[in-house]
Amino acid sequence: MATLPPEGRPSPEHIFQTLNAQHQTAVLKTGIELDVFTAIDEGNHLVEQIASSVQAAPRGVRILCDYLTIMGFLAKEHGKYSLSPDAALFLSKRSPAYMGTIANFLGNEAHHKNLARLTEAVRRGGTAGEKGDNLAPNDELWVTFARSMAPLMVPAAMFIAHLVGAHEGEPVRVLDIAAGHGTFGIEIAKQNPQATITAVDWPAVLQVARENADRAGVDGRYETRPGSAFEVDLGEGYDIVLLTNIFHHFDPQTCVRLMKRMHHALNGDGKAVTLEFVPNEDRVTPPAAATFSLQMLIGTDAGDAYTLAEYESMFQKAGFPYNSMHPIPGMPQQVIVSRKR
Amino acid sequence: MATLPPEGRPSPEHIFQTLNAQHQTAVLKTGIELDVFTAIDEGNHLVEQIASSVQAAPRGVRILCDYLTIMGFLAKEHGKYSLSPDAALFLSKRSPAYMGTIANFLGNEAHHKNLARLTEAVRRGGTAGEKGDNLAPNDELWVTFARSMAPLMVPAAMFIAHLVGAHEGEPVRVLDIAAGHGTFGIEIAKQNPQATITAVDWPAVLQVARENADRAGVDGRYETRPGSAFEVDLGEGYDIVLLTNIFHHFDPQTCVRLMKRMHHALNGDGKAVTLEFVPNEDRVTPPAAATFSLQMLIGTDAGDAYTLAEYESMFQKAGFPYNSMHPIPGMPQQVIVSRKR
Repeated sequence: MATLPPEGRPSPEHIFQTLNAQHQTAVLKTGIELDVFTAIDEGNHLVEQIASSVQAAPRGVRILCDYLTIMGFLAKEHGKYSLSPDAALFLSKRSPAYMGTIANFLGNEAHHKNLARLTEAVRRGGTAGEKGDNLAPNDELWVTFARSMAPLMVPAAMFIAHLVGAHEGEPVRVLDIAAGHGTFGIEIAKQNPQATITAVDWPAVLQVARENADRAGVDGRYETRPGSAFEVDLGEGYDIVLLTNIFHHFDPQTCVRLMKRMHHALNGDGKAVTLEFVPNEDRVTPPAAATFSLQMLIGTDAGDAYTLAEYESMFQKAGFPYNSMHPIPGMPQQVIVSRKR
Repeated sequence: MATLPPEGRPSPEHIFQTLNAQHQTAVLKTGIELDVFTAIDEGNHLVEQIASSVQAAPRGVRILCDYLTIMGFLAKEHGKYSLSPDAALFLSKRSPAYMGTIANFLGNEAHHKNLARLTEAVRRGGTAGEKGDNLAPNDELWVTFARSMAPLMVPAAMFIAHLVGAHEGEPVRVLDIAAGHGTFGIEIAKQNPQATITAVDWPAVLQVARENADRAGVDGRYETRPGSAFEVDLGEGYDIVLLTNIFHHFDPQTCVRLMKRMHHALNGDGKAVTLEFVPNEDRVTPPAAATFSLQMLIGTDAGDAYTLAEYESMFQKAGFPYNSMHPIPGMPQQVIVSRKR
């Protein structure tokens, strides 16, 4: 997480480093864009070799790779660079777990523009972005999201599939709200041949989900319902609804309204499964969940990283008195499972 | 420095956090702009009190202050925020060591634009900024620098003043190259009533140095020579020349050329005093010095954070065979003292 101030007497160093923290984002994004990780994985270890492979200048590559080394994504010994375990697994295109695409969303220009207006967002108490809260139909940001962020979601998708007992193979009907890339529903369908998935999102986004369902070979059990989760006919009698990374965009009243629709769509024994950043009551721990509220400040009118108590209160108002939280090992997010009875 | 990857098995968390590291810069910059630190120092500890004091929305202030807490600039207990020792000393305007102004330079829009073109800079091996390398006469960036960065330089200025024996009170003539805010020469003049300072920089920048000299009460011993350090008549017979944060902008050949001019300007026993970010030979330690080369990649055509061996080589070519390095305690920079004999 954020660099912590050094122990001992006050020093300007932590302030200086924090004001330069944006360099870290740029360096990793550029490393991914130029694909230096794959180049190194392919056996290029010296500055000149890497520079030639990625078609960049040696001076630029040396400074970039040194910075990546300082951040721990590379190691450097006697002038030779090699990949860290994280970089080998997640940043080399030779790895099946490659997730360099997430830089397209997290390092998105729209996102940066919102961030550049943070002072105004704090004054207003909500996004100061030109485009408002990005919740309009087919906002291209969500297509970028769907095309970029799936790899980061794999551990959570596998965790949720296990949590809802996909491996048990019972016939289940799953409703995937704001499906995006579709990873969460698709993972359940992959593990459970008796599962059918109904995915809801904007039409342009659902196209990405459908491509991913085709690629996973579950397209025969994959239905889509294009439109707003607040307005489209969802159907009913579902065993599971997936609510992944959606509530944080809205104010509590709107969350209750959405959850009431889930209450109607689920059968009596059904489970609503929420994936979210859920900070502790102090709202400053754990860091990864607690800092997420900033993204909602710069990008939405009234969204937030809600605490468990807040989710319980909202979900109870929507008719779900039973809620349990499940942290995902090694990931910054939590899962809340909600039941009517 | 940069967040390090957690020990143990690979996880996407460090990648995710690094791609979001730019949030840290924005949060601290906004905290300084809205002056929440001074507001808290004045006795406002609750969200509503701070929001009212800085005229911002409670939701925005809560999310901002929580993030500042996570980064260690604030503490939060039972919903009440207080300042960390660093924040109390350097970020509250009630403190004489206030240095919030440095956000104006480090968080400068020109700087961000260069950073946004990092990929192109790596390809080229030099700045991809619209304005090139910012070394044109009177570039407004250097006026911003002179007006913003002085507080950060105070520890180094006091260190250098001591190192050159300012407290001994001998009559000395000091030449301050690229004086900027003038802090380094002014500190010597403050400590040594027998010191006279000659400051060289662009005219618009020297105006800032002169204001600071007036304020310090040393204006009677403060002469200015407007122009390029490479072209203006510097005079000669100086006992000390100060070369603070200048060499890193240039290629080695240009550094040698500049240092030869210093050789001419100094008397036989004179000292050239260089303040720089000097990484170790591996170029990846210590972090604060080693990462500085990135700023030179995005902002200059051929500048760098040079190693001690590189400085020794350049300075020897310019006629200074004797060079010694002095780290500044608690600061990321080093001082090199060079002598002709």
